[in-house]
Amino acid sequence: MQTMLKQRAPSAAGKQAPAALPRVAPKVGRARVVAQAAPATAKVAAPAISRDLVDKCINAIRFLAIDAVNKSKSGHPGMPMGCAPMGYLLWNEVMKYNPKNPDWFNRDRFVLSAGHGSMFQYSMMHLTGYDAVPLEQVKSFRQWGSLTPGHPENFVTPGVEVTTGPLGQGICNAVGLAVAEAHLAARFNKPDVKPIVDHYTYCILGDGCMMEGISNEASSLAGHWGLGKLIALYDDNKISIDGHTDISFTEDVAKRYEALGWHVIHVINGNTDVDGLRSAIAQAKAVKDKPTLIKVSTLIGYGSPNKADTHDVHGAPLGADETAATRKNLGWEYPEFEVPADVYDVFRQAISRGASDEANWHAACAEYKAKYPKEWAEFQALTNCKLPEGWEKALPVYKPEDKQMATRQYSQIMLNALAPVLPGLIGGSADLAPSNLTLMKISGDFQKGHYAERNIRFGVREHAMGAICNGIALHRSGLIPYCATFYIFTDYMRNAMRMSALSEAGVIYVMTHDSIGLGEDGPTHQPIEHLASFRAMPNMLMMRPAGGNETAGAYKVAVSNRKRPTTIALSRQNMPNLPNTSIEGVAKGAYTIHDTEAGAKPDVILMGTGSELELAHAAAVALEKEGKKVRVVSFPCWELFEEQSAEYKESVLPSSVTARVSVEAATSFGWAKYIGLKGKHIGIDDFGASAPANILYEKFGITTAKVIEAAKAVMA
Amino acid sequence: MQTMLKQRAPSAAGKQAPAALPRVAPKVGRARVVAQAAPATAKVAAPAISRDLVDKCINAIRFLAIDAVNKSKSGHPGMPMGCAPMGYLLWNEVMKYNPKNPDWFNRDRFVLSAGHGSMFQYSMMHLTGYDAVPLEQVKSFRQWGSLTPGHPENFVTPGVEVTTGPLGQGICNAVGLAVAEAHLAARFNKPDVKPIVDHYTYCILGDGCMMEGISNEASSLAGHWGLGKLIALYDDNKISIDGHTDISFTEDVAKRYEALGWHVIHVINGNTDVDGLRSAIAQAKAVKDKPTLIKVSTLIGYGSPNKADTHDVHGAPLGADETAATRKNLGWEYPEFEVPADVYDVFRQAISRGASDEANWHAACAEYKAKYPKEWAEFQALTNCKLPEGWEKALPVYKPEDKQMATRQYSQIMLNALAPVLPGLIGGSADLAPSNLTLMKISGDFQKGHYAERNIRFGVREHAMGAICNGIALHRSGLIPYCATFYIFTDYMRNAMRMSALSEAGVIYVMTHDSIGLGEDGPTHQPIEHLASFRAMPNMLMMRPAGGNETAGAYKVAVSNRKRPTTIALSRQNMPNLPNTSIEGVAKGAYTIHDTEAGAKPDVILMGTGSELELAHAAAVALEKEGKKVRVVSFPCWELFEEQSAEYKESVLPSSVTARVSVEAATSFGWAKYIGLKGKHIGIDDFGASAPANILYEKFGITTAKVIEAAKAVMA
Repeated sequence: MQTMLKQRAPSAAGKQAPAALPRVAPKVGRARVVAQAAPATAKVAAPAISRDLVDKCINAIRFLAIDAVNKSKSGHPGMPMGCAPMGYLLWNEVMKYNPKNPDWFNRDRFVLSAGHGSMFQYSMMHLTGYDAVPLEQVKSFRQWGSLTPGHPENFVTPGVEVTTGPLGQGICNAVGLAVAEAHLAARFNKPDVKPIVDHYTYCILGDGCMMEGISNEASSLAGHWGLGKLIALYDDNKISIDGHTDISFTEDVAKRYEALGWHVIHVINGNTDVDGLRSAIAQAKAVKDKPTLIKVSTLIGYGSPNKADTHDVHGAPLGADETAATRKNLGWEYPEFEVPADVYDVFRQAISRGASDEANWHAACAEYKAKYPKEWAEFQALTNCKLPEGWEKALPVYKPEDKQMATRQYSQIMLNALAPVLPGLIGGSADLAPSNLTLMKISGDFQKGHYAERNIRFGVREHAMGAICNGIALHRSGLIPYCATFYIFTDYMRNAMRMSALSEAGVIYVMTHDSIGLGEDGPTHQPIEHLASFRAMPNMLMMRPAGGNETAGAYKVAVSNRKRPTTIALSRQNMPNLPNTSIEGVAKGAYTIHDTEAGAKPDVILMGTGSELELAHAAAVALEKEGKKVRVVSFPCWELFEEQSAEYKESVLPSSVTARVSVEAATSFGWAKYIGLKGKHIGIDDFGASAPANILYEKFGITTAKVIEAAKAVMA
Repeated sequence: MQTMLKQRAPSAAGKQAPAALPRVAPKVGRARVVAQAAPATAKVAAPAISRDLVDKCINAIRFLAIDAVNKSKSGHPGMPMGCAPMGYLLWNEVMKYNPKNPDWFNRDRFVLSAGHGSMFQYSMMHLTGYDAVPLEQVKSFRQWGSLTPGHPENFVTPGVEVTTGPLGQGICNAVGLAVAEAHLAARFNKPDVKPIVDHYTYCILGDGCMMEGISNEASSLAGHWGLGKLIALYDDNKISIDGHTDISFTEDVAKRYEALGWHVIHVINGNTDVDGLRSAIAQAKAVKDKPTLIKVSTLIGYGSPNKADTHDVHGAPLGADETAATRKNLGWEYPEFEVPADVYDVFRQAISRGASDEANWHAACAEYKAKYPKEWAEFQALTNCKLPEGWEKALPVYKPEDKQMATRQYSQIMLNALAPVLPGLIGGSADLAPSNLTLMKISGDFQKGHYAERNIRFGVREHAMGAICNGIALHRSGLIPYCATFYIFTDYMRNAMRMSALSEAGVIYVMTHDSIGLGEDGPTHQPIEHLASFRAMPNMLMMRPAGGNETAGAYKVAVSNRKRPTTIALSRQNMPNLPNTSIEGVAKGAYTIHDTEAGAKPDVILMGTGSELELAHAAAVALEKEGKKVRVVSFPCWELFEEQSAEYKESVLPSSVTARVSVEAATSFGWAKYIGLKGKHIGIDDFGASAPANILYEKFGITTAKVIEAAKAVMA
């Protein structure tokens, strides 16, 4: 059942907020929430400061945001103005964090899924004393080189957990953070000592996040998993960029979340009802087997007499006149960027509170260490985020005479070789485990009540899967998330993958069925442009290994790169282990696997990747029989090749050899960079078709014969 | 309220189905639906054929699918086996269609969102007499050149409405088809004559579709819009590839759909309860102001004694032994691919029924035409899918002295210039209308009860937006759908865009804020690799116009290409109307806008697109002052350039001129094709940053000075 908290009378210590609702007439035809009062079940004591001071603290949040957005002439004041009471409550009463050590392991995680409201987060961080956000940084909001960019960016601002802005990503990241906590808690905590892993994950999300499908995916999983320490506050302000949400968003969100298995509470007046918010959070914590959604009805731009409750206040500065009117309306008598001392006095208590919380945790750790030295050592080894010494020795090496397999099978072998030596490896597939071959055999399924397990069943939810893995990675506790689907379905999760790359989350994307080689499922399932599309993406390592050694090499690169995601494209079909393919070669991005006698200049260079490297190799052998000098270059990762020295690159692809052919069952797009204007690419620049794989290769002309023909043409 | 229909006693005319449930023990721990019986409110007469014959018809569907999948050694028999009763009912009793004229305008639309079950659709099409699916085609399932590919493909098989397979797309397409019907019905039907636009849209979707976020997005919109003629049947078989759905999917789907504003009915035994299905559809039709979800609980692979209700029957052939056992279990005594004559007799009545339905519609049209000749002419002009004569004359032309604007503003002008002359133009934005500038001022909002309007408010649901537009386009009634968001958020909708390209849906993607030029919102909002990623996509026209004339040219191309989607990347910031930019030039993909005196070979060619063409032009002017001969090529569309003659391409980019520079505020990826191995690209191969746009251009070195520097370097 959904619990509703009505607007409360002000606490005895305080008085009514300056204006319950500013003079904004409700829009005609717009249904406002009218809910029955329900008694709060949890008793929560109000803190020992006056309501006046509480309101002052809340208004300080609002005006820092207003002033910063005005100064930068760009930004989103409406969300911070509406959510300021949540900010006050979370940072001043609820959350456990240490402003002076934002990396403290056992901190509560906060995610601003409504990332455009970044000034909300910067206001809170400034007020509570984070070193990254002194007043100068607030004043530099959205400026080049500042620590206060337009949207929260974990790689810029210490204390920001994840990068948000693209709507819906944040709530999924929050699910990932909660997964990480649940997993580590189940693995390490012991019943007879204080827990060493024990934090909540809080998230504020808005109407935009709620409309995005990705949030439904992740929320369905969070409900399924029963992540009781995930508490999401839904800023139900009923305004989005196009205007009132009733033009496109009239569903019953609370009921949907109940259907997803969440505990749902409604705070009807989020603008002033701090007690109601407090009580709601207490109730949320009391329900331990479900995540909680607190629907907090607010007015966007609360306090602005002429713009509150309109989209004008969503994404544009209030401007001088309206700012003055808002100051008057809220009784805020301080000049721009001035925070009253008594407000700082309240918020900066976070520093001592945080130090004390962290000290208590260290004490708990000491107790744990004394009683469970082995587990403590494991915990430390994992959470220091360093890879175990010699882990890469677990990767197998293959010889040409070994049985042919598909690279998805080699991938399965790698995952299972690494699972025992990498205790942080955790992940799974979007309902394609038997096809992606991604189960770690030493582990069971991560499920409600079985959080210590490491195989995650994501269901058919690719986009949330990626974003959840970002959250797991950015928990920064040594977990190495991987996730899997058919390569084509990266199209469903592309923004999450881009967010991995942008936010330096070293997620491993295991993408099988990487070409028309998947056969009969046809063009809806056959990637063509995907390799190019990821090669073009900054900070993404796009690997397409050929055979067992290169698959091992791809995993070595992927695991080593903890701040760079790797996508590994893997075949459905078998391929040989070609001579000279190697783990070391993969690390260089491209390398020669077959050459003419030492020192001789090749007549032609044939380049290939993955399942087509075999065609290049076979073509070379055939051409050599005709007296040609042929080099074969395996090209598993363009990005790594670009990072090699100019000498190395020249040694692999000498400028003097302009007769070049590439072969890859994918678009030619991009290959001109390596084959030049005169080179030829054997591939496919159109959609595939439904038929057995061998027929498709023949029909689309991706064959050894075509490589030979192209080689002869470029040599002519 | 959700209505539940319990399993019914067989109708008086028939008898019980051979096996209520085959010998499959329910899995331990798996909650099966146990629902209270509720009386059906709608009275529906059973047809005058025996239950025996009904079951025979249903089993014929099953065995065609079983046999075809066995023969192709690939495919998905489980879905058709479980859904066969739905197929029987829909095709034999419910749907209005003409197998001999699959293009009949007023047909009911059917979408198999669970596209892997394609043999279900081919079985139905074969049994009911579609010319595209004779028995030989059933036997050629999933083979090269067949009309029966692995997933339903509208561009291959006449009678298939849309292309499905990527999960969740189909239900969104169905929403789009229902939008098209509602729109045209509201525009053209008259109260005093029979409706000329009047059909239902049916969709079967499975657990996979339900897990995908895209389906929630579109379903939320369908509920918001109250699309009463959309009826979705949810094949609730509780099996997906990883096994039973209880490992990742335990939400209450029915309740979620109620929350989304749908009418929800539950048929508890979809395996045999044809009467229950019939009654459910009648109830669905009775509710006219909401879409209906009929949750149909089935056993996947119903009839297979050893594989039903397991994922083994999802995506692999039954094999000889299990097929024999299934034949025995279901009492099916016919050999492979044999359809008994009495089954054909039942199903092939669809041919005369369809002819009669179509004739009745033509009669209604004649009546309409007589009474409303002007409206009839408009209806015909629209639905013949030919563009109105001279429509392109509405596009404005600009001179260099015209005021500078952003291309998103030119785009707004184009949309509003075209809206009056293209009555099929319909579309909108994913909650960014004030930023994308996509409202047609002559129209109101498409809303419940206001279906005749042409501005669609998609909310923050990019992926569903694209897929809904695909459905609108593939309604094939002359509607020209466009949709819009920030260019970066194509990452949220990429599969829908690919499906436009694959399924020949001429959707226009209006993508504004196309580079770091968007400024302060920062790298989460700044496209870098997106131009490259769409240039690599087959059958997608990727346009990046510079100024007013090129924006007009982009729209001319986009509107003209009704079987090819176009993505138009548009700037946030102003740019000049450069001399010689033209609508005609855009049609060639790349063209010279500035050259040295006639006949002289340029020393260097500078290429640019969109907002950076200005930099190339300014660099040329500066270099000419230093005595260099410089050509400037505007390059709005790579795909169109590639389609030009070799002579034209050589005339624009002569092979003899190897000193080439490209400038585009985006990745260099792909440009090697035009600038060669020695060329230089001025752009950005890393993520952007949060700062004002002019600062970003300066900091990332995308300036006239850098173009000049690069030009000198390549000339050296």
